[in-house]
Amino acid sequence: MPVKHAVDVEELPVKGADKTTIQVLISSEEGPNFAMRRFRMKRGGFMPNHTNTVEHEQFVLQGRAAISVNGQVTTVKAGDVVFIPEGAPHWYVNNGDEDFEFLCIIPNQKDQVRIVEDINAC
Amino acid sequence: MPVKHAVDVEELPVKGADKTTIQVLISSEEGPNFAMRRFRMKRGGFMPNHTNTVEHEQFVLQGRAAISVNGQVTTVKAGDVVFIPEGAPHWYVNNGDEDFEFLCIIPNQKDQVRIVEDINAC
Repeated sequence: MPVKHAVDVEELPVKGADKTTIQVLISSEEGPNFAMRRFRMKRGGFMPNHTNTVEHEQFVLQGRAAISVNGQVTTVKAGDVVFIPEGAPHWYVNNGDEDFEFLCIIPNQKDQVRIVEDINAC
Repeated sequence: MPVKHAVDVEELPVKGADKTTIQVLISSEEGPNFAMRRFRMKRGGFMPNHTNTVEHEQFVLQGRAAISVNGQVTTVKAGDVVFIPEGAPHWYVNNGDEDFEFLCIIPNQKDQVRIVEDINAC
């Protein structure tokens, strides 16, 4: 740092999700208070309903998806902002025609992920 | 929240900058640990050399600009990631052909801004 090109950052599959990758753009070692990650979900990809012990602040960069936060389903698209409180069950499905990409910033605190239920049940 | 359309968020001029606006997408009241803001700098706009008492984690959404962090000048463009440590002097000049837009996330801590010198001196 101070400048990185996101395209150069390693892209890794997200465990428990389908057709979805994560890039850690600014890690919890680089940022003293929070980490910036970029997720990319291909057409038809999803993340199942789950909770985290940390909140998420997200910005949609590209594409569209159905998301659910606390059981409330919404379609989000590029330019939308999403806040997911700690402990709130949430899931994502890319039901659009292109990759769905978003930034997700989380605090430098211990995060525990718990799968809540199968996405088909939502 | 949990979902906002950034286009609906009030856009205010940035004090001390030129042709530059800020939108608070997720405020320090909404997020427990950090706030997400979007800046838009029109062609020829700038922010003068200054310091903050909090770090910045930034993602460039559109356009290009010359930025300086700790005296090191770099051109950044859409898809680039910038980390500005607390206390580091930094400035921006939109020397591109379109609006320069970036997200800037800061922790929920007291921030003091101090102008370091005129941008023309950099």
